[in-house]
Amino acid sequence: MSTATAGTEQASEFDRGIAVAARPGAASVYDAELDGGWRIGGGINGGLLLALVGNALRAELGRDGGHADPFSISAYYLSAARSGPAEVRTETVRRGRSVSTGAATLLQTAEDGTAVERLRALASYGDLAAAEGDVRTSATPPEMPPPDQCIGTEHAPPAFLSQADLLRRLDLRLDPACVGWALGEPSGNGRIQGWLRLADGRQPDPLMLLLAVDVLPPVTFDLGLPGWTPTLELTAHVRARPVPGWLRVTHSTRNLAGGFLEEDAEVWDESGRLVAQSRQLAAVPRGAGSAGAAEGSGR
Amino acid sequence: MSTATAGTEQASEFDRGIAVAARPGAASVYDAELDGGWRIGGGINGGLLLALVGNALRAELGRDGGHADPFSISAYYLSAARSGPAEVRTETVRRGRSVSTGAATLLQTAEDGTAVERLRALASYGDLAAAEGDVRTSATPPEMPPPDQCIGTEHAPPAFLSQADLLRRLDLRLDPACVGWALGEPSGNGRIQGWLRLADGRQPDPLMLLLAVDVLPPVTFDLGLPGWTPTLELTAHVRARPVPGWLRVTHSTRNLAGGFLEEDAEVWDESGRLVAQSRQLAAVPRGAGSAGAAEGSGR
Repeated sequence: MSTATAGTEQASEFDRGIAVAARPGAASVYDAELDGGWRIGGGINGGLLLALVGNALRAELGRDGGHADPFSISAYYLSAARSGPAEVRTETVRRGRSVSTGAATLLQTAEDGTAVERLRALASYGDLAAAEGDVRTSATPPEMPPPDQCIGTEHAPPAFLSQADLLRRLDLRLDPACVGWALGEPSGNGRIQGWLRLADGRQPDPLMLLLAVDVLPPVTFDLGLPGWTPTLELTAHVRARPVPGWLRVTHSTRNLAGGFLEEDAEVWDESGRLVAQSRQLAAVPRGAGSAGAAEGSGR
Repeated sequence: MSTATAGTEQASEFDRGIAVAARPGAASVYDAELDGGWRIGGGINGGLLLALVGNALRAELGRDGGHADPFSISAYYLSAARSGPAEVRTETVRRGRSVSTGAATLLQTAEDGTAVERLRALASYGDLAAAEGDVRTSATPPEMPPPDQCIGTEHAPPAFLSQADLLRRLDLRLDPACVGWALGEPSGNGRIQGWLRLADGRQPDPLMLLLAVDVLPPVTFDLGLPGWTPTLELTAHVRARPVPGWLRVTHSTRNLAGGFLEEDAEVWDESGRLVAQSRQLAAVPRGAGSAGAAEGSGR
């Protein structure tokens, strides 16, 4: 099998977007093709890249009856990824009984022929089906109107849509309480939330959750700070396999300071289970109090 | 300079604990000595290891006018560290204008002479003094009684103290509302908080914050789950230089499920600023619904 994605899902845009092929003769190296349809702003969306690298690590750590589900993945974004060929070099750091740890780097070739690193990642993989035990989640699912009473992204400002090709691949319905920014009236609460599914009907799974944690508009929009928020670091924890259907995704921040902000995401499935959590450190948009660290990820 | 720690701080237990010495003739390799005084449970405390690796990365990324302050560091814990010699192999992944990215691995030599990896880390470093801009922190500092009305760890159960040598190096005063577990009456809230400073008077700085995020009793104690909670992954964001004095540290969890929990820490300095945030994914203690993934960090 040269492609690590399950054959039955090949038709979906998402599965094509994260497909990797083991390079013949090069152990632990996977080839991929970044599709400009996942572009936002100046680069390919950081959540898609996370899922792509997560898919390569799934192939690497899942070999020979290993561990195929991401439990935790941390990505450090180094430069904006472009459409075109890419490679993922992976390393098995440790194979454990119930958890294995891997490392990965995503590279592209620059016009001058040199390899440019897009992101570096570490991850722990296991078997979510074996992750049994109490569920004592004290977090509560977000309250928002049903999808048909939320705001589809087709209503987003044209200037935003033109920069966000990936929105066409999502069915994203934002809570009306969180879209004041699109009308020039941000709430200032630092919270954006909505319903999410893939536009082509592909159901959520652990890899799709890695996209879900970084695909909503940045929470800075709700703080009245337009512009891109390049991600320095993002860590996602996948805590359960989602059931089919809609996801509810929340983004919030508690600490915008010194030119950076932390942004927390929670992803809830249709059964009401908290299936993923993430936190990222991102740069505040330039011109809005940024330290100018923006060397970003195409968030 | 063969030692990366500032000379004026050499006398402190913490600075000795995280001291690294560049190995002559081996670029980017640093030698260290793990001191059993930082032991908790079966290994050296994970926060101390994070600060040690953070110190090596400070030496590596801070060279030649580079970036010396941790902004974000993610550690994947692989096996319990023991007292004795250790080495940190570092790599400069990318030097940027305002942020540089590094990787590190902490190794020790097993009895059979093989190298055993204790943790693998990625990190972004910058200059906290240059991280200016708005402070719009919406998180609020924890409310708790003043230190002299909190509970010193000398009152902890003897069975706990005997496993936690590092407590002697801390001046840790827990909020009385969070210590019911020590009397067999855990609150069930999933929250532990207290005042923290180093026992020898060494003042907090960015590296000491890396210790602070992982040195309180695990939040599982407050949920009535005794035992160790081995860390799989911990990511800390250092957001500002702390002023001298006490730190307030909170640990909380929102999602204990399937044998794992996320634990969030916040560290506030005496000026009332949120100076660090962290999140870790840890295994629920064995016998308490764990998936048995405990291959841990000496938390």
